[in-house]
Amino acid sequence: MNNPFFKNHGPFKVSEILDFLGINNHDFNKNFEIQNIKDLMTSTENDITFFHSKKYKNIARKTKATFCITTEALKSELPESCNTIIVDNVLIYTSKVTSLFYPDSINDDFDETVNNINDTNFNDKVSYGKNVLIGKNVSIGVNCKLGHNTIIEKNVVIGDNCSIGSNNVIRNSIIKNNVKILDNCVIGKHGFGFFPFENKNLRYPHIGIVLIEDNCEIGCNSTIDRGSMSNTIIGENTYLDNQIHIAHNVKIGKNTILAGQVGIAGSSIIGENVKIGGQAGISGHLKIGNNVEIGGGSGVIRDIPDNTKVMGYPAKNIKEFLRNNK
Amino acid sequence: MNNPFFKNHGPFKVSEILDFLGINNHDFNKNFEIQNIKDLMTSTENDITFFHSKKYKNIARKTKATFCITTEALKSELPESCNTIIVDNVLIYTSKVTSLFYPDSINDDFDETVNNINDTNFNDKVSYGKNVLIGKNVSIGVNCKLGHNTIIEKNVVIGDNCSIGSNNVIRNSIIKNNVKILDNCVIGKHGFGFFPFENKNLRYPHIGIVLIEDNCEIGCNSTIDRGSMSNTIIGENTYLDNQIHIAHNVKIGKNTILAGQVGIAGSSIIGENVKIGGQAGISGHLKIGNNVEIGGGSGVIRDIPDNTKVMGYPAKNIKEFLRNNK
Amino acid sequence: MNNPFFKNHGPFKVSEILDFLGINNHDFNKNFEIQNIKDLMTSTENDITFFHSKKYKNIARKTKATFCITTEALKSELPESCNTIIVDNVLIYTSKVTSLFYPDSINDDFDETVNNINDTNFNDKVSYGKNVLIGKNVSIGVNCKLGHNTIIEKNVVIGDNCSIGSNNVIRNSIIKNNVKILDNCVIGKHGFGFFPFENKNLRYPHIGIVLIEDNCEIGCNSTIDRGSMSNTIIGENTYLDNQIHIAHNVKIGKNTILAGQVGIAGSSIIGENVKIGGQAGISGHLKIGNNVEIGGGSGVIRDIPDNTKVMGYPAKNIKEFLRNNK
Repeated sequence: MNNPFFKNHGPFKVSEILDFLGINNHDFNKNFEIQNIKDLMTSTENDITFFHSKKYKNIARKTKATFCITTEALKSELPESCNTIIVDNVLIYTSKVTSLFYPDSINDDFDETVNNINDTNFNDKVSYGKNVLIGKNVSIGVNCKLGHNTIIEKNVVIGDNCSIGSNNVIRNSIIKNNVKILDNCVIGKHGFGFFPFENKNLRYPHIGIVLIEDNCEIGCNSTIDRGSMSNTIIGENTYLDNQIHIAHNVKIGKNTILAGQVGIAGSSIIGENVKIGGQAGISGHLKIGNNVEIGGGSGVIRDIPDNTKVMGYPAKNIKEFLRNNK
Repeated sequence: MNNPFFKNHGPFKVSEILDFLGINNHDFNKNFEIQNIKDLMTSTENDITFFHSKKYKNIARKTKATFCITTEALKSELPESCNTIIVDNVLIYTSKVTSLFYPDSINDDFDETVNNINDTNFNDKVSYGKNVLIGKNVSIGVNCKLGHNTIIEKNVVIGDNCSIGSNNVIRNSIIKNNVKILDNCVIGKHGFGFFPFENKNLRYPHIGIVLIEDNCEIGCNSTIDRGSMSNTIIGENTYLDNQIHIAHNVKIGKNTILAGQVGIAGSSIIGENVKIGGQAGISGHLKIGNNVEIGGGSGVIRDIPDNTKVMGYPAKNIKEFLRNNK
Repeated sequence: MNNPFFKNHGPFKVSEILDFLGINNHDFNKNFEIQNIKDLMTSTENDITFFHSKKYKNIARKTKATFCITTEALKSELPESCNTIIVDNVLIYTSKVTSLFYPDSINDDFDETVNNINDTNFNDKVSYGKNVLIGKNVSIGVNCKLGHNTIIEKNVVIGDNCSIGSNNVIRNSIIKNNVKILDNCVIGKHGFGFFPFENKNLRYPHIGIVLIEDNCEIGCNSTIDRGSMSNTIIGENTYLDNQIHIAHNVKIGKNTILAGQVGIAGSSIIGENVKIGGQAGISGHLKIGNNVEIGGGSGVIRDIPDNTKVMGYPAKNIKEFLRNNK
């Protein structure tokens, strides 16, 4: 389910991959064919994976990948079945290999495949406004509305009874049933992931999608980036107010409410029944539990356990925050 | 003036309203006709109102409404002339009754009534760009400009000498004279008001409008939501920078300045000659006095009296903030 | 380089300028012709300049301008060669004189000069989407892409290999090579500069531009305002995430990274290799050094020296911030 929309250009022979990386001093079976690149956890035999931080050593020990891009210091953590490709900067080489398998996932130039909806098969299935554009590989359920100037770029699945407003740009996304997206949103663009490399930024391929579950509402002028290796997910019945930014790989549970101008940085996981006040920000790679309430304006920089109310910057117990700030 | 644009589908007989709510055990004159739903203060005879919090008991005692949705605990505060409909969750039932009177105020699907301005009577009265769309029930004064791709949806009044930029979506709004709205704004959409109900969010109808007084400027990529029962108001000569979010029912006085990325939560009232620094946020239901200055980045969570300078999160006296943070 | 796009309507005789300002009691050679208005530093003979704050007295002493708008209190700081025009509010009169020389720089009404790209010479030089509009005085290099509904208004130079997304509005900007601008951005509009004057806001003319150097990326729904007297500059290889606001006159160095929803107020200067976390805000007129790291959510209200890591509101040493907030 990670990348239903990005074509895997593999398999590639080990020799092709090493040539592409400019690495020559290894003696694998260079005709071995690698099927795909995946993370340590989801890799299976014949895949290549990557291992760049001790934090993941427990997962690394169990990986089923046949090849792994890693460092001299980390390689001893990997199982014997796993052939190691030793590099100095794992993420940059991983980025390069990912771009070899998924060349279409790097750049998000405007979609040249779109047509005016009047000239497509959707013209009698969907209720639509003026100047609506539809890309290739799009499907739309029954009883949907598409507002004026909205661009459904390639690789979008929209369920039933969805109401999409005007001036939106959507790509690489699965939108389930009864979802409302208001106006001026951009959904499914690549995340803000790249590595400084030789005086330029090397963009990390984003092969994940945006998945918006049933009954969600997305406010005006919001942006939701698609995932890099995993997906960005908005859970069932979750409502986003205006001017919200959701970065790549974020996963939000169901029945959650985000007030205006909230921002969530990459890879954070938000629980169910969470309430986040206006302008609050959540740093990357955090885990926010279920039934959490985060006061408006808070800056969350640590995990928050279930059933907790926090406020402040950095966010702490809300009673403590208010007591200290009478 | 609350809802010049939303058609009242009433009157409804009491019996129709009770049936709609699934309430059967009351013995009013069920043929009595209710004209409208209003708040406690503005209701007159033959209206239905609602009373959900002790906070409003002084207003409740004087209401002129013939019917009131309330709770067992609160009903004794209402005058004898007022018939009570007792429910467990006042706001949800109020929401339902409002949607009965004003069914057009719940959903903000794209406006299907729009036409290209070339095909309307405005084509020789207004200076306009490419692909401009105009809905029904729109009026525009003299010497106005409408930028490219801008959508003036239904129910908009624009005064004289207004300059509207490109890519805007405007509906349910009254814009007075000499107003400038830059680009990519959404003005007049419903606010972020709803109640979790049976595992879905029940949207609260928004029958208010956005009112922008003379000589205002609204920056790029800003959003101003219309009011629920009352209006959202931007006072005369008030300037908003880019990426500002104004929630429903907010009222801003005249000669006020909001710098970039400011957000004001629902129902707060901002005075005259107020200066709000960039990225400051103001919680909902607050009262900010006249001649107040709020430092950039502040988080305001309490009322602020006239002629006060504040900064911080939570915002406090600016001298104290700076002294404590040398 | 300050104003390649705004036509100087000068020279004007001193008498014309005084009449325009409503000032009559001075006895210069009223037939003297003033060529241009510039700041104290860049003025040369036959220019008019302005001097409104003691802060600039060292520069004032060396100005080469023949005329200067200033106050009674400040005039003694100016060289004898400089004729003074004494007023009570220097910035308002400066604003008026600037508008005399550059009347096209005050209002940012939608650009009436645009044509559909199909009807221009760009139709076989550029790869473009549907409904793309191009204004007068635009040049575009080789191998560029312009997304759907994007409006390149007048006075824009785009280099080679640029990819501009959909729904953007760009004017008064120079965009160099290999730049990516994603979707729904507004670039080159006037900044948020004006003076309250006789119960209206008098807009300050913005005769600067936006300059985006090679290899930059600008995220979705961002806004970058052009400069007033100087330019707004985004340095080489600098990346901006979504929903970023860059105010007028800001200068950002090369290899800098701004995460989502960051805001930078007017005239601040950001160094090279700076990393700014999500939702951080930087006040106006500050100097942020090279290799600075600013934590997410920070509010920066003071200059920051090179090679410093800060966090908090107001931002301080990051170790101190984290130690105080365990």
